Amino acid sequence: MSVKIALLGFGTVASGIPLLLENNSSKIRSVVGDDLVIAKVLVRDETAKKRLLDQGYSYQFVTSIDDIVDDESIDMVVELMGRIEPAKTFISRALSAGKPVVTANKDLIALYGGDLLTLAAEHQVALYYEAAVAGGIPILRALADSFTSDKLTRVLGVLNGTTNFMLTKMIDEGWTYEMALQKAQELGYAESDPTNDVKGIDAAYKVAILSQFAFGMTIDFEAISYSGIDKIRPEDMTVAQKLGYVIKLVGLLEETASGLNAEVSPVFLPKTHPLATVDGVMNAVYVESIGVGQAMFYGPGAGQMPTATAVVADMIQAACTLRDHTAPVFNRFATKTRLAKPEDIVSSYYFAIQAANKAGQLLELTRLCDVCGIRVEQLLSDEIDSDRLDFVMITHEMSKKEFVCFTTLLQDHQDFHMLNTFKILGD
Amino acid sequence: MSVKIALLGFGTVASGIPLLLENNSSKIRSVVGDDLVIAKVLVRDETAKKRLLDQGYSYQFVTSIDDIVDDESIDMVVELMGRIEPAKTFISRALSAGKPVVTANKDLIALYGGDLLTLAAEHQVALYYEAAVAGGIPILRALADSFTSDKLTRVLGVLNGTTNFMLTKMIDEGWTYEMALQKAQELGYAESDPTNDVKGIDAAYKVAILSQFAFGMTIDFEAISYSGIDKIRPEDMTVAQKLGYVIKLVGLLEETASGLNAEVSPVFLPKTHPLATVDGVMNAVYVESIGVGQAMFYGPGAGQMPTATAVVADMIQAACTLRDHTAPVFNRFATKTRLAKPEDIVSSYYFAIQAANKAGQLLELTRLCDVCGIRVEQLLSDEIDSDRLDFVMITHEMSKKEFVCFTTLLQDHQDFHMLNTFKILGD
Repeated sequence: MSVKIALLGFGTVASGIPLLLENNSSKIRSVVGDDLVIAKVLVRDETAKKRLLDQGYSYQFVTSIDDIVDDESIDMVVELMGRIEPAKTFISRALSAGKPVVTANKDLIALYGGDLLTLAAEHQVALYYEAAVAGGIPILRALADSFTSDKLTRVLGVLNGTTNFMLTKMIDEGWTYEMALQKAQELGYAESDPTNDVKGIDAAYKVAILSQFAFGMTIDFEAISYSGIDKIRPEDMTVAQKLGYVIKLVGLLEETASGLNAEVSPVFLPKTHPLATVDGVMNAVYVESIGVGQAMFYGPGAGQMPTATAVVADMIQAACTLRDHTAPVFNRFATKTRLAKPEDIVSSYYFAIQAANKAGQLLELTRLCDVCGIRVEQLLSDEIDSDRLDFVMITHEMSKKEFVCFTTLLQDHQDFHMLNTFKILGD
Repeated sequence: MSVKIALLGFGTVASGIPLLLENNSSKIRSVVGDDLVIAKVLVRDETAKKRLLDQGYSYQFVTSIDDIVDDESIDMVVELMGRIEPAKTFISRALSAGKPVVTANKDLIALYGGDLLTLAAEHQVALYYEAAVAGGIPILRALADSFTSDKLTRVLGVLNGTTNFMLTKMIDEGWTYEMALQKAQELGYAESDPTNDVKGIDAAYKVAILSQFAFGMTIDFEAISYSGIDKIRPEDMTVAQKLGYVIKLVGLLEETASGLNAEVSPVFLPKTHPLATVDGVMNAVYVESIGVGQAMFYGPGAGQMPTATAVVADMIQAACTLRDHTAPVFNRFATKTRLAKPEDIVSSYYFAIQAANKAGQLLELTRLCDVCGIRVEQLLSDEIDSDRLDFVMITHEMSKKEFVCFTTLLQDHQDFHMLNTFKILGD
């Protein structure tokens, strides 16, 4: 008896699956006790079907989801189409038909995971999506199975390979943002419309999923504040380097007195921080907790084979739940969602401020800091020309409330203009 | 209904368990569906019992294992006594009584794990030991559950916190081996008899366990060649630094054409390698594979709370198997053990060689290399005094067979003396 799989979609990741099933067949058999066999593949239409048959693939290609959900011989459905619809409908139908589902669809899980998990629970079938966060890094299962005895306090993730590649090149090679983006597109790391990557949206989807596993909290995507790497200036890079930091796009989840803070933004990380050495398209998730202290999980965040490997690992786990007739809940940790209040969200900051070049500006700037209760740790000034004086400030820890106070004061001030702000994350 | 636990031993790690159970009770309940309760604690004798009662502990302390294995209300046994006996007998009796067992005892698992796992399988109960390898890093479960779809090719581990602390201090602070050892002992990282740590034995135990999870192979402890950090000279440190390497004590498992090579030794690692930044008492396991490519798992290798956290995570998993009535095999991957032949074990090497200071020595040295088929990549010479000339050689890749050829030639040569050798691991 083999476990019969239906694939929804046969793009890059999906086409890596047969290879993994074949090359690891004896290992899979020793774990599952059975073979996993691709029994059907859903493709868009007859043209796609003909193209794949012409390429030599001999799967049973179908063009209607009915041929899969109504087929009792299909044991499991693997969704690799991407986007929201029709993936959401197809997954819902598969779950309702009592078939476990594996997916790598982070957008879908981040936005509609709650509904789908409820459906999976109702029908007592697995819904696994390890590949949706940090590709080849098995972080979700580690959080779900190995951190059950621990209380997490903070999670920092380099969760987007495209932007991490770009930032690495901007730091190491001195490339501009535009050069880095162009190269990332040439290499196929960035799409022609790079918005989701460079604006931090992709990383924010992953933060939404991580929050369930790390803190047991389901947060609305809207509750995650995100910003991207497209506003980083070469000057920010230079100052960061000079002061011993690197700039990384970091997904942050942290427990505060009032609740969870979830955000994505480019931050200053000390060069000595384990995440600071995560370069190129690699991803990493750094976990702080009461019990273990610090741990980091590092690996490729995307790519055909790493993603396919994570998908097949999920398929194997799902097959084990079929074999064992167990209640196959990916993540059982759930608690009431509480979001942090701005006064409890605390960090040091980097501020780059442009000022009119005239006497008394430093005095005025420190007065504004004082008004908002901000303590300055380090201050650099740079006379750009006879009209313009730039300041760089590193602050002691301050709250998001104080941050808003300060940025609002500057916005309304005729002599000052905020060029950029970054959180500074400590060791 | 709660899950009733018996602890064997109540030392440092064990005494961290009640705290974790209490602080994470709602999380544990959401995962297991039940509470985990410490019902009995086995201690050595009446004196130990009295001491713990005097300290305010109110557990039911017992001094005979019979009181645990014969008690049908005990659901699970957690062994934290360490050493081989009586731990081995007690675990065997618990398994034979149908009770799942969790242990952190790496010596025992490395040396007798096979017998105990067979016994666990016979009685259909769990035997989990995540804490035995790299303390707070959930590497065993990650390999068992998330790398089932992948073929591993090489595993490199910084697996001993004591020696990694010492090496870090020797590199960063220029301490001698003796200073580093003394400090490690003062801080409680090293025992008064540090043999197991500094000679690489502790790391070799972990390599033996990792080989089962990473390669499905059970290897005899005797098949693991190990050496420690006690022979590292300050001069080796200096040359490593100069050439862009750090010296780390690395547990290595690698697949070769003829089979598995397993060893522990201090090696040269490029400073750019992810493992090179693993400093102090931290551990990390770096995994190379066909599917994922590279991944690294980083965290504390020891310490009360990290170890206790890993133990409790195992207890939770074991409790889930009781709830689900599943066949609770930690690692199902098993394949025939094949050990690598010396000619297939390939690496670059660092050789530090002392020579008599006379003409023609370089010529003679290169002749010896030639005899063994060794290609030199880099050569440094240093005239120590009028009698002595030191050479440092970095080789291209060469086999262990060639290594033995060369070291044997040098041993028999009146003019040369091998001061030290290190493997050089590539990126």
